Parts: sequence; C-alpha cells; structure tokens
Amino acid sequence: MALIALATDFGEGPYVGQMKAVLLSHAPRAQIVDLFHSVSPQAVLEGAFLLSRTWAFFPRGTVFVAVVDPGVGTRRNILAVRAWGRIFLAPDNGLLSFVPPRAVLDVHLVETRSLFLPTVSSTFHGRDIFAPVAAALSRGTNVRRLGRKVRGFLRDGRLFPERSGGRRTGRIVHIDRFGNAVTNLPSTGAVRGLCIGRRRYGNIVRTYAEAPLRRPVVLRGSFGTWEIALRNGSAARAHALRVGMPVREA
Amino acid sequence: MALIALATDFGEGPYVGQMKAVLLSHAPRAQIVDLFHSVSPQAVLEGAFLLSRTWAFFPRGTVFVAVVDPGVGTRRNILAVRAWGRIFLAPDNGLLSFVPPRAVLDVHLVETRSLFLPTVSSTFHGRDIFAPVAAALSRGTNVRRLGRKVRGFLRDGRLFPERSGGRRTGRIVHIDRFGNAVTNLPSTGAVRGLCIGRRRYGNIVRTYAEAPLRRPVVLRGSFGTWEIALRNGSAARAHALRVGMPVREA
Amino acid sequence: MALIALATDFGEGPYVGQMKAVLLSHAPRAQIVDLFHSVSPQAVLEGAFLLSRTWAFFPRGTVFVAVVDPGVGTRRNILAVRAWGRIFLAPDNGLLSFVPPRAVLDVHLVETRSLFLPTVSSTFHGRDIFAPVAAALSRGTNVRRLGRKVRGFLRDGRLFPERSGGRRTGRIVHIDRFGNAVTNLPSTGAVRGLCIGRRRYGNIVRTYAEAPLRRPVVLRGSFGTWEIALRNGSAARAHALRVGMPVREA
Repeated sequence: MALIALATDFGEGPYVGQMKAVLLSHAPRAQIVDLFHSVSPQAVLEGAFLLSRTWAFFPRGTVFVAVVDPGVGTRRNILAVRAWGRIFLAPDNGLLSFVPPRAVLDVHLVETRSLFLPTVSSTFHGRDIFAPVAAALSRGTNVRRLGRKVRGFLRDGRLFPERSGGRRTGRIVHIDRFGNAVTNLPSTGAVRGLCIGRRRYGNIVRTYAEAPLRRPVVLRGSFGTWEIALRNGSAARAHALRVGMPVREA
Repeated sequence: MALIALATDFGEGPYVGQMKAVLLSHAPRAQIVDLFHSVSPQAVLEGAFLLSRTWAFFPRGTVFVAVVDPGVGTRRNILAVRAWGRIFLAPDNGLLSFVPPRAVLDVHLVETRSLFLPTVSSTFHGRDIFAPVAAALSRGTNVRRLGRKVRGFLRDGRLFPERSGGRRTGRIVHIDRFGNAVTNLPSTGAVRGLCIGRRRYGNIVRTYAEAPLRRPVVLRGSFGTWEIALRNGSAARAHALRVGMPVREA
Repeated sequence: MALIALATDFGEGPYVGQMKAVLLSHAPRAQIVDLFHSVSPQAVLEGAFLLSRTWAFFPRGTVFVAVVDPGVGTRRNILAVRAWGRIFLAPDNGLLSFVPPRAVLDVHLVETRSLFLPTVSSTFHGRDIFAPVAAALSRGTNVRRLGRKVRGFLRDGRLFPERSGGRRTGRIVHIDRFGNAVTNLPSTGAVRGLCIGRRRYGNIVRTYAEAPLRRPVVLRGSFGTWEIALRNGSAARAHALRVGMPVREA
C-alpha cells in the first residue's frame, strides 16, 4: 500500500477532508500525508516549485496528488507521470514543470471514467477524479489502466532561473509562514547579494540567528535556494515582497 | 475499527491535537480524518451545511464528531444519532439539522460519565466527552451504552431554502478559501440568476475558467448548490459577501 | 511503534509535510499526530505553555517533537528528555521549561550524525535532525545512542506566575482561535478578578454561554488556567490583548 501525498491550494476548509474521505473509501488502509495546501490560490508556479523541492523526501512508491487547477472542468488533461520511482498525478498546466524529460518513465492520461466517482462535478476534480484514481494506484492499479500513453506535458520555463551576462535572474516563488521570501535561485554556489527592483540585499548569513535586527539578510534556505529573511519579523511584509517578483544575482 | 471524522470550528491551534491525543489513547488503532475545522467560530449553521454535503463521501460505519458548540458546559444535550449507516456525535443545537426524521435509526443522549475523561472541563467537551466517546464507538461500543434513547433533536429550518411565489430564497452558508460564496440553494435545476440585496448575478457558467475577469459568475459548486465566484479573485471580498446573507433566485 | 506528536511554529505550509515525509521514510508504520503548529513564530514561551498543558493527554511512550527554534543552525543543543514515560525532543532554548527536575529520568544530547539526514541544512533541523531521530526513537532506538548524557537544560522562569503580596502575577501565554486570551495563572483556586494594565476583569463565569454580550468575562479555561473571553467575539481583538502581557490577580 503506497503512501499518498497531497499537495494543493485548498487551504483550510472542507475540500481536503472530502478528498481523504474518498481516498479512504476506496483504499481503507492508505496512508495519507498533507504535503502542503497553503499554495496561493491558483498559483501553479508556486506549487511546482514546492513540489520540486520536497518530493525527494518521500519514499519510493509514493503517489503524489497535486491539485492546483484553475482549469478544473475544462478540456485540460489530467496526467499520471512516473518518474524517480514515484507517481505524480496533476493537471497538465505546468505543475509538473520540474520533472525533466530524462527522468520520466512514462506519461498517461487520466481518462478511464470507471475509476472516477460516479458523478463528476465540473468544479472539484480533486475529490471526483484525483482521489479515487490515487486510491486505485496506491492499491496497485497499473498506470496503463488510467488512459492512453502520451509523449510529453506542459513545462513552464518560468520555474527556472535565466542566465544573462553571467548572472542569473529568477523570481520569488514562495513566501513562508515566517515571512521569508524564497527564490528559485539555487544556493549551491556563492553569491554577492540579491537585487529586487532597485533594492539590493547584500548581507549574507548562514543562520537566521546571525541576522541583525531590522536588517534583511540573504541565506541558504531549506529548499536549496537563496531566500531573504528578517530576524524576528517578516521580510515579505517589511519590503512588500510577493510571489512572482523577479530577483537578480548582484 | 471505524473511521473517525472530525468536524469543528477549532481552526488551527492546540484543540484538535488534544482531541486526537484522547482518541488515540482510547483507541490506539483508530483512523482519524480532519473533515473541517475552519467553520467560523460558533457558526452552527455553516457547520450543519458542510456536514450535510460531505458525510456521504465517507464509508459506512464512520463516526462523525461534530463540535460547533457555543453552549459547551451548559445543560444542552450531547447526541449520538445513527443514520445512513453512520453515527453522528454532536451537541443538540441544530448542527444535525440536515438529518431528516426518516433517515434516523435512533437517537441516544451521551450521558454515561464512565465513558468520559475523569475530569470534565466546562469549556472543552470535544476533548473531555466527544473524543473518548467516539473512541469507544469506533471500538464497537453500542450506542445504547451512551445514555437514554430520546425521540428527536433540534432542527433549524434556516438550513433549508424557502419557496415563495415560485422562487426560492436561501442564504450564503460558506465562504471558501478561494472567496467563493456558497449558497444553500440546490443546483439540480436551472436558474436565471441570483440576487443578494439589490445586486443581481446573472452570468451563469459551468467552470471557473469560463468566467470573464473582474465579473462575478454563478456556477454549480461542488457541494451541489449554487455559488458565486470571481475568476482569479475573491467574490466574497469584492462584493462584501458574508455567511448568513439571504440569496434569492432571480 | 510509538506515537509521534508534532508541536511547532511552522503554521500551514510545506514544512510539516516534509517532516512527515522523513518520519515515514524512516518509520513507515509510525502514527503521527499534529499537536499544534500555530504557535506565533519563534514564541518559545507560548510553545512551552501549550506543551505543558497538553502532553498528559497523550499515551505513555509518545515521542514529542517540539520545534520552536529561532536558534536553528547555531551551536544551541538539541535535547532528548525522558520524563513521565514520554520522550521530548526539543532545542535547548526553554521550550521544555515545564519539565521539573524531579520528573526527569535523563537528558541526552542529540548529536549522533549517523541518525540525521545525510545533508543537514542550517535552516531546517525539524526535517534534517528531529524527524529522523524521532523516527528512530519510535522504532525503539535507545536514547543513549543519540549522544552524551547531560545534567540539565535551560528553564525559563517566565513560564510560571510569580507571587508577591499574596497575589500572583502571570502573563498571557496564548490567544486561541476564538480570541480567548489564555493566561498561565492556574485556575485551581478562586480569584476575584484579573487585571491587565489598568483594566480590571471581574466578571467570573463558568461557561462561555453565561457571558453577557459585549462584556468580557474570566473563566476556567480548558488548559487549567484562567482565561479572558468575550461572547460571540474576540476578547483579544476587542481589548488589544497580546501574548506576553502581564496579568495580575485582582
């Protein structure tokens, strides 16, 4: 029985609970983990970033149910992508942009209606399609049963930084609970600072505790990317930082 | 071992965790699902609506623990209602208004103190009474052991729309995370539009993605009722919609 | 297989999900309960209070993972404290101030790197250290394997009320979802009222429902301490009450 990880923009409220009800109705012994539900409404790119930096902590065999889905009920496809020994269920809207072609074992459409709930709404496929299909997968149903095999899927290049003139430009992809502004600039190398608009952040530290009070710092965040933080405060609020803002290496 | 579903107005915070601690102390193998904890504080009607539209997704045998309980510690009764193959624990305050007499197998008071925690506070019966009783039920304790059988319970008619002059009037019963205003007007038939106060919502669509930007729409929501939505935005915030507001069919 | 209880200031978002991913990778059958994640960012004292009043509802053998950790990545120690038949993992920053010396069986440092994730960030020890160590403990690893035995740990006296002139002074240690201001003044005896600054709260009731509208009351809260509440409203918002404010017995 595989682990099922839920990653949505449903926030608090009765949507996640309904998905779990369906999951446990169809796979009574499933183990379900809430990965995140706090993605900003319809923020596909934020969801893609968070998934890209967290899936590897889950064991092989995990079924990820990723639902950030502004196109719910339209003709957009739903995908089952096998990669890295896991299965990712998601709408074909860029949410799986982080899975490179070389990692993909195969891609199937999710279209076998007998696996869905008997009644499918046009507003909540997380409950009516994703949950029963994930339950089936966790019980060993082969992905080939879900639908036709297809070649590729939508990848949104904005998930990745660009390089020009030797420096990279990325963006803020997540504001966390502490007000830290997380970028998509990998923190593997060194950096002299980050720039957002005209503001330069040049104070680079290793831990939150090293930051002086009231002066924002740059540090290697736990997602493996640079982030901007403010000690005992919210960098995002203090500097009006928002998801989507471009960030340049200084 | 039955599934236990928790439906409260406790929000984030340490109350739900305490209930789970007691549940697992008394039924170590219980499977617990958070249905919702986001109901507005003391909003019995909102809780009743959400329960009414979600219980059916849970498997038969589920024990629902419904705690929206402004009268905690007073002489209001606590009920165990058997209906539709499930058991509903709730204060007798209207939270189970959606269970019609014809569906009820029986109703018992929850009054057997030996099933409660040894010390019962007057402010948190969710932990001190509901949780240990639900644990007992999930382990197979017969509802007759909980207390006397009674005939009926409080039903609040405001949960249901009224009909006058061929048109129905209901109300907003829930604002979801996306700012969608959910009504209690069933969306089984057709409608020409909805009116709230002097404002008329006449643009009816099938999916969120069909909505034009900046113009609110009406659509069949996933609760099986009409809801008002705004694409990429919060209809509730944009139009100051709140739980309890009357909604008329146009 | 022991129960694992998580108590953090991580709020909503992807941090708790990552901890669970690591826990279940290392202890696939672990049972995990969210005790709270809603503590104000970096509010060690609030976390200590909530833990002090909730641990006893968990069964013996529970492993508590307490992460309110502004010093993450610095030289502060991580502790494994055995007390009351449970194990508490926490940074040595006062979060375990509520465990008195007489209750402590032993204290070990958490320093055996082979138990950590292979890569340890300097910003998220909850995932990289606490989670894999808790998984090991839940599977029966002896605390002696975690690291050296030490004598004591940091206890912050502000967790407890002080007595002067026959009256006690404590503080507000938690604002709950309903806006109730929870103090650390035990409600075992009687009290004539509470004072915060120049304001006196003298209306003592037994249940929330007994409170008159628009007039704040004092009552015995479910944490076993006095709290200030406002019927159908938020006492904290109405009176600008905040965590940390001193509260005197009247």
